[in-house]
Formats: sequence, C-alpha cells, structure tokens
Amino acid sequence: MTDKTSALDAGRDIVAKLNPPLEGQLAEAYDELVPDFAETLVEWAYGRHYARPGLDLKTRQLCTIAALTVLGGQTAPQLKVNIRHTLSAGASRTEIIEAIWQMAVYGGLPAAINGLNAAKELFTELDAAA
Amino acid sequence: MTDKTSALDAGRDIVAKLNPPLEGQLAEAYDELVPDFAETLVEWAYGRHYARPGLDLKTRQLCTIAALTVLGGQTAPQLKVNIRHTLSAGASRTEIIEAIWQMAVYGGLPAAINGLNAAKELFTELDAAA
Amino acid sequence: MTDKTSALDAGRDIVAKLNPPLEGQLAEAYDELVPDFAETLVEWAYGRHYARPGLDLKTRQLCTIAALTVLGGQTAPQLKVNIRHTLSAGASRTEIIEAIWQMAVYGGLPAAINGLNAAKELFTELDAAA
Amino acid sequence: MTDKTSALDAGRDIVAKLNPPLEGQLAEAYDELVPDFAETLVEWAYGRHYARPGLDLKTRQLCTIAALTVLGGQTAPQLKVNIRHTLSAGASRTEIIEAIWQMAVYGGLPAAINGLNAAKELFTELDAAA
Amino acid sequence: MTDKTSALDAGRDIVAKLNPPLEGQLAEAYDELVPDFAETLVEWAYGRHYARPGLDLKTRQLCTIAALTVLGGQTAPQLKVNIRHTLSAGASRTEIIEAIWQMAVYGGLPAAINGLNAAKELFTELDAAA
Amino acid sequence: MTDKTSALDAGRDIVAKLNPPLEGQLAEAYDELVPDFAETLVEWAYGRHYARPGLDLKTRQLCTIAALTVLGGQTAPQLKVNIRHTLSAGASRTEIIEAIWQMAVYGGLPAAINGLNAAKELFTELDAAA
Repeated sequence: MTDKTSALDAGRDIVAKLNPPLEGQLAEAYDELVPDFAETLVEWAYGRHYARPGLDLKTRQLCTIAALTVLGGQTAPQLKVNIRHTLSAGASRTEIIEAIWQMAVYGGLPAAINGLNAAKELFTELDAAA
Repeated sequence: MTDKTSALDAGRDIVAKLNPPLEGQLAEAYDELVPDFAETLVEWAYGRHYARPGLDLKTRQLCTIAALTVLGGQTAPQLKVNIRHTLSAGASRTEIIEAIWQMAVYGGLPAAINGLNAAKELFTELDAAA
Repeated sequence: MTDKTSALDAGRDIVAKLNPPLEGQLAEAYDELVPDFAETLVEWAYGRHYARPGLDLKTRQLCTIAALTVLGGQTAPQLKVNIRHTLSAGASRTEIIEAIWQMAVYGGLPAAINGLNAAKELFTELDAAA
Repeated sequence: MTDKTSALDAGRDIVAKLNPPLEGQLAEAYDELVPDFAETLVEWAYGRHYARPGLDLKTRQLCTIAALTVLGGQTAPQLKVNIRHTLSAGASRTEIIEAIWQMAVYGGLPAAINGLNAAKELFTELDAAA
Repeated sequence: MTDKTSALDAGRDIVAKLNPPLEGQLAEAYDELVPDFAETLVEWAYGRHYARPGLDLKTRQLCTIAALTVLGGQTAPQLKVNIRHTLSAGASRTEIIEAIWQMAVYGGLPAAINGLNAAKELFTELDAAA
Repeated sequence: MTDKTSALDAGRDIVAKLNPPLEGQLAEAYDELVPDFAETLVEWAYGRHYARPGLDLKTRQLCTIAALTVLGGQTAPQLKVNIRHTLSAGASRTEIIEAIWQMAVYGGLPAAINGLNAAKELFTELDAAA
C-alpha cells in the first residue's frame, strides 16, 4: 500500500466495525497531550495491521487478546477494550476466555489469572449495561 | 474433566495431529534432567489447554504464535516449533506471518521483527527439507 | 509419576499445608468461567511442581516470591497470596523481604520496590486480622 | 571511584537537585522493613549512576522515563516520581511526553498509553498543587 | 499532521540523517514476507515519532538505547543498529555506554550487562571496518 | 550498614566463597568501557544484597536461579554463571533444576525450558572440565 491516506481510511473502516466511537474517545483523551495521537493510532494499528488481508479480523482480535494477556496484568485497560472489540468481531465469550486461559502455558499462571480477572470485570460491566 | 488420565490421553491425541514425534523428543532431551518432564508437558499444555473445546486448534496455535512473538526474541526456539505446529493445524504461512507482524502494535517493533526472523529461519529449513 | 490422579492428590496434600481453602476459593472464583480451573491449577502447580522431591517446600516458596517480584508489580495479587503460603511453609517475614529486595539486582529497583509494597500491604492485613 | 563514601555523598548531591525530601521519604517508608534501604538506593542509583560524568542529568532522566514506560504500566509509581525528577532536571513536559510516546515503537502501544496515563495523572497533581 | 504522505517523507528525511541504506535493507529482508514492511516501518517509527518536534533527535536515540537495553538481551540486533543511529545523531560512545549502564537500576544487572555486550560487539565491528 | 567500604569488603568476602576470580574477570571485560564497573557490581550485588543477614546464601542463590529463569532465555549468560555460584553455595544440581522447572508455573513453559537448556549447557561444560 503506497497511498498513506488509504491506511488511515482503511483503519477507520475497521474501527467502524469494532468500536465506532474509538477515534473520538482517543482524541479527547490524548490529542491535547500528544498532537495527532488518535489519527496516528488508527492509521498504525487498524490501517497498517488489522485492515491487512491474510488473516481474518476475528482471529486477529483473538491473537491480540492472547498477546495482551501474556504480557501481564498491567495491560488490563487495553485487554478490556480489546475484549469488546473481539466480541464485535464475532468471537464468543468462551473463545475469548479460552485464548486467555491458554496463556498460562506460555506466560505463566499469574498472567493468565490476571487476564481472566480483566475479562470478568468487563463481562460484569457489559451485563450491567445490558 | 475429572479423569486425569484423560488429560494425558487427550493431550497425546492433539500431539498426534500437530507433531507426532514431539513427546519422544522431549523425553529424550529432558526426562533425565527432569523426571516426568515430557508427560507433564503433554498433559498440561496439550491435554489441559489445546484439547479443550471452545476454541479451535488452528486459532489456538495462532494465538500461541502471537504470544511467543510479543514475549520477545528469546522465545525463538519455541516459536519455530510452534510455527510447525500451526502449519499442521491448517494455517497458511501468510496467516502466521500476519499474526507475528501484528505484534508490532502490542509488543513493539523489536519483538515483531525478531519473530519474523524466527519465521524466516523456519521456512528456510522447511524449504530445504522439501 | 505416571499416575495422574496422584498428581492431583499430591497437589491437594501440599495445598492442605499451605492454604487449605485455596482450591475451593479458586473454584468459586473461576470454575464457572473456565471449567476445571481449580483442579487443573492444583494438579499443575502443586502436584506437578511443589510436590516434587528434590527441593524443599520452604525454598520452593521463596523462589516463587523472587520470581513474582522480578516479573514486576503487576503480579501483586499473586505475590500477596504466595507470601501467605511462604509463611505457612515456615519462612520468616525477614526471609521473605530479603528475597524480594534481592530482586533489585536482577529485575531492577521498580520491580523490587513494588514487591516490597505488596509485602507491606499483606503484612498490614495479617496484623489487622491477628 | 574507589571512595565508597563519595558514592553516597555524590548521590545525595544529585538528590538535592532532583528531589530533596526523597531519602527521608524512602527511609520512612522502607527502612524498618529493609534496614539501610534508603541509603543503599541513593548510593546505588544516584551515586553510582546519575552522578557519573559522561551523560548529562536531564538526558539521564529522560532515558529513565523511556525505560520505565517501555517496561509497562506496572511501573506507574516509579514513572510518576521520575517525571517530577525529570522536570527538576530541566526537561519540559513536552519532552517528557515525547519520550513516553516514542516507546510505542519499542514496547508497543499498551506500554506507551499506560505511560501517558501516568503522566496525565502526575501533571494533574502538579497543576492542582500549583 | 494530517497529510499522511508527509509522515513517510518526514520519516525518510530522518533516515537519511541516521542510516541512508536502511529502508532498502529492510525492504530486501522483509518486504517479500510482509508486503509494505519497510515503508510502514519508516512511516511509523521515523515519520510518526522521530520526526516529531518537541524532543531532539540525539536524545530520542539515547532514549531508544535505554529502552532496548531495559527490555533485555533479546533486543541485541535492534540495539546494535540503534547504537549506529545514535552515533549518527551526534552522541558519543561514552554517552551511549552510560545510558546502557544506567539501566542496571531500572531493569537489573542482566539487562544492562547484555546491553554492554551488544555495544562492545558493535564497537568492535566499527573499529574493524575503520 | 553505614560504612560504605564495608559493603565492598562484605561483597568481596561473598565472592571469595562463590567464585574468587569474578571481580577480576568483570574488571577485564568491562572496566575500560565502564570505569568502576567491577567494584560497583561487587559492592551492589554481593555487598548490599548477598552479604545481608536474614536469608542464607544457598537460598539467595536459588532465588536468583528462579528469577533469571522466569525473566526468560535472554539471561542465559547470567543464569549459567549463577548456576556455578549456586553449586558453590552448597546446592545440588537437582535443587537447581527443580527451581528452574518450577518457573514453568510462574513464567510459562518457554522461560522454564530455556532455563533448562542453559543448565544443560553449563553441566556439560562442568563435566567436560572435570
């Protein structure tokens, strides 16, 4: 892809499927501190990765769930947001939990348990809002 | 699952699909140093995780690829073995590479690039043996 | 060990020494989300590791304190539980603190200080309950 | 430097520039738990590193900001303290934020975003106290 | 910055100062495996971060040296390349070594020592080529 | 301890038990690059930690083995040196291997397996030199 505007547009198309308010929320939270933050993130993460062909969106999101879990409990804010995205991408709660629990093998029990804790919190928030 | 023998058996069924010689190779390399090593690993990783319902084997393996990549280049030996397993589970080389490259977003460029380096090595080995 | 039921039983024997209510608490917190969670954890961590001969239980627990500390402050929930277990295994508070503080050498000052913070919290809880 | 007392003195000179109450606060928080803690930390971190010639104090502090960010959100307590020190060393808030945001390249977006969150908290505290 | 072509151009301007052959080398090594790899990296790392105002290029590079060191010895390939870039940005070998050694405080002695080892290797290569 | 010279002396006493040539080897390898490196390391790691009362030397070394393992395979150089030290401190090869293997629980299988690989290499070197 050599047309940089397309990376941002492609990223925005993905965000429209996963979490439409995301870019606006990021801009509100960070653009004052870091000029161009929201646009850069959407272009990089969603345009330059999630929008790529070769791996479907639901699997990409489950890979992200696994990665955030194995990194450790400090990624809880990002894990919770990405669990929402993974549900939007068509995964079930069971698939998400299984990807998290599997990380006990590769990152150890603390990382996996803290991932399960983040998932429980997020599911509780979703159920309360339902 | 309350029947522990079933966890080992279930693990062995998975290994038969992914990499039949694995348990024997692990036993030869580690059982003298760590009694019960190979059996314990097959029971824990494959019986207690990969054999579980709720997430398909190919997606599980791609999640593992993502996790090993995001942890960093020091997991190269495990990443190479698991790339073989992920191909056995039905993933394409493209899907594997895409999962690795996506980790630049969550673990940074060094982790992703070192993952790509491990994949290139493994593909070269496979092509040489073909 | 080839008898898988023994791994779970051996694990339960260890848990009875370290923290009798543990399996029930884990089952209540996680078994609905992850079927077989509590039993799997007791079998794997306590049956397949802590119950092994070759390293005494108190030293095993101090090694765990060191490991959780060096991984970083995100393991605080697990570190606090394991400090309880390490006291049950016969270690003194001083031995535990010394293991944590030594991690400044191998994981850096932030990891060690966050480990000391978790220990202080746990000791305060124990003293309040005494 | 072969005169060990000088390392502690040199460290104290640096702390006097960055955050005069630091050693006393550390002693109050940790010396009972870890005898000699505060003095050891000042000697090691500030005497044996920050006081060294060869790299100026402001750049040293910005390197620390980068390091704490890339390690992940679990270092938030240390990152906030070191942001204060980095301002004392003559850096602007913009320079600090740029060093944090750059860590998205090397440690991934979660680490960088959690670093920005710590910075926002700290700036809010400073502005409230002003 | 809303003109995406400028991010790639701005990135290329930085690369021209630090290491002119870089994009071509990355394209040769990775573009077949990951379409658009080299361009994406230059746009993201150099256009979206290094080219930003607010923090000078030499300090940015020293922050990168610190970050790669504190992450651990597995980043040695990236650390060696970035040491070259940091010299191009106007830092001395002493400044680079001091930034690496300081990481013993924040990431522990192993990370710092492995960083020094990577620096020694790179300096030996540079001296041999001189 | 308020007498800084004693920290270095106390550290040298410990090194005399664990690995007498260590300070000289470190000085030869690093003192030219980092003035005062060897003395600083002996004072900090051995004088300020290993020489402290409250935890015996053999347990301290086993905690270090656990920590280096759980950090991941990139610490292999440090792990091998510390396995030598742990044997000097009176631990058996079995105790060392058990501490390493237990890290599969807290840091995951890759970290533990790479630790076992480092141990195997070191034991082979020792047996060849015997």
